[in-house]
Amino acid sequence: MRGAVLYGPRDVRFEERDEPTIIEPTDAIIRIAATCVCGSDLWPYRGIDAPTQPTPMGHEYCGIVEEVGSAVRNIKPGQFVIGSFFASDNTCAICQAGYQSRCVQSAYVGAGGAQAPLLRVPLADGTLVATPDIPSDDLIPGLLATSDVLGTGWFGADAAHVQPGKTVAVVGDGAVGLCAVLAAKQMGAERIIAMSRHASRQQLAREFGATDIVTERGDEGVARIKEMTDGLGAHSVIEAVGSQEAMMQAMRATRPGGHVGFVGVSHGVQLPGQELFYAEVHLHGGPAPVRRFLPALIDLVWNGKIHPGKVFDLTLPLDQVAEGYRAMDERRAIKALLRL
Amino acid sequence: MRGAVLYGPRDVRFEERDEPTIIEPTDAIIRIAATCVCGSDLWPYRGIDAPTQPTPMGHEYCGIVEEVGSAVRNIKPGQFVIGSFFASDNTCAICQAGYQSRCVQSAYVGAGGAQAPLLRVPLADGTLVATPDIPSDDLIPGLLATSDVLGTGWFGADAAHVQPGKTVAVVGDGAVGLCAVLAAKQMGAERIIAMSRHASRQQLAREFGATDIVTERGDEGVARIKEMTDGLGAHSVIEAVGSQEAMMQAMRATRPGGHVGFVGVSHGVQLPGQELFYAEVHLHGGPAPVRRFLPALIDLVWNGKIHPGKVFDLTLPLDQVAEGYRAMDERRAIKALLRL
Repeated sequence: MRGAVLYGPRDVRFEERDEPTIIEPTDAIIRIAATCVCGSDLWPYRGIDAPTQPTPMGHEYCGIVEEVGSAVRNIKPGQFVIGSFFASDNTCAICQAGYQSRCVQSAYVGAGGAQAPLLRVPLADGTLVATPDIPSDDLIPGLLATSDVLGTGWFGADAAHVQPGKTVAVVGDGAVGLCAVLAAKQMGAERIIAMSRHASRQQLAREFGATDIVTERGDEGVARIKEMTDGLGAHSVIEAVGSQEAMMQAMRATRPGGHVGFVGVSHGVQLPGQELFYAEVHLHGGPAPVRRFLPALIDLVWNGKIHPGKVFDLTLPLDQVAEGYRAMDERRAIKALLRL
Repeated sequence: MRGAVLYGPRDVRFEERDEPTIIEPTDAIIRIAATCVCGSDLWPYRGIDAPTQPTPMGHEYCGIVEEVGSAVRNIKPGQFVIGSFFASDNTCAICQAGYQSRCVQSAYVGAGGAQAPLLRVPLADGTLVATPDIPSDDLIPGLLATSDVLGTGWFGADAAHVQPGKTVAVVGDGAVGLCAVLAAKQMGAERIIAMSRHASRQQLAREFGATDIVTERGDEGVARIKEMTDGLGAHSVIEAVGSQEAMMQAMRATRPGGHVGFVGVSHGVQLPGQELFYAEVHLHGGPAPVRRFLPALIDLVWNGKIHPGKVFDLTLPLDQVAEGYRAMDERRAIKALLRL
């Protein structure tokens, strides 16, 4: 089969790779229906933590089960399934507490490279969630979104303790930030402030539920959020950029006793302890335990209640994966979907 | 009147000061029944953020209302009252959310210096809580403890989301750490691990509810907690030291999805963003909103359900305040109570 392999900065190749096989009896092999390029794929693509050897890319996936290992009980060949980028047994104490991304058996599904026709998924029974039926084509983008970008934005909103009737700010207008807006809306937030200075992203933010747009950044962005909230700051702020500036902006835009949820942090970010202390905010984040939310999110998409597939503003055949990376790197696309 | 004034490192003097007077109509003047030396008083005493001018000391207090301003409605002269080190109106949105230490009108009560016979308390109606009656002498230490050390330990346990049946670790065996043990016990924790290497403090920790003592520190302390919790870490960790090492120890000893509560951070502490991200813990702390807990804590002390006054293992007359600082600085005493 042919799949995406990153050789070095801005060098993604679509090339012949070995087909995956069942290694552990708990594995499944999925025939991918659609995959996509993640904002986090751009980090190594841009040379940050660049791979030291050719690396299969992609960790977002949905598709039909092709084969399962001998110990797989619930997942069956022929089912349409979605899973997260982290495999999880879904039974250990950490999974049961809702932190499947930190499962004691956790394995990175993306190691297999989901930007390819076939993918090996470890711990299939714990990791994969089957849809009620084989989805129609128009449902695929939304279902694919649940695999990571929606699940991650949702976790950001959950980690930021979004509550009905409250004010939420979202730092970052990438696909995850936009999905966090959608999540905040679903969780009943009254006021949702999207921080964005790009017209097309502002428009999608509004479509997803943003009530206000703030174009200022850094200290000016913080001042603007304070102005809009009686000088107090937002109840919840979701940080969906991962830079030092964005983390500080999120912390400073949150009222005392409020919550900051964050879903990614780049290398070298340091949080000043005393400022965090006097900010008196709650801080929570980490690799999103998407599996916790998958059944509910699949249900919302399946029943047409939410349309997170709108974050895909570029659709390409898989063999044009390199153009997907380029378009996102140059911010010509919010997120590129790759069809098989 | 005579009160404690800090002139410089290890130079506390008991000297003549002006008596406080009503300045704002919302003020009250309290005649102090007992006060004490706080762990945080030791920071400037040891020359960290040392005062640039002679500074009245003390911010823990209980006593009888001597006089109130014209706008004070609920607090009456003759009542025995307790308040926190932060004055708060207890009506603003931040107070109503339980963060009175960050009240929009917040003022530092300690500015008046509570290690003295009389203290001015701003925002008396919001700040002070009256006891049901004038307490007997034996209740004074426990009631005084609610003013800060117990309220702060309690907040640490609350911020660390201590839950019935769960495992809690406490980093730090000072008076606040010991009170955090007491709080965790009251909140129903099943296993309470006190990290301490001092026999007398270990004993009080056990008396307050600790089920286990860990004497190791740093990475070894973390390894020990992991060993005791199936390799996962504690559900809740309360950090009651404030150093870089202690903060890292707390973060690393907490399981993914668990909670770290912290109640003080010294200058220069930096939290590495990526480690916090992959630790996937909740982090919350700040100046304790003691006022939130005061009514319940006063009630527990008044009815003999808890005995936080045991943290005072040294009692001195106020004029020996300098010896109180020395004894705590040299760790000869956990906490010094000053009688008037």
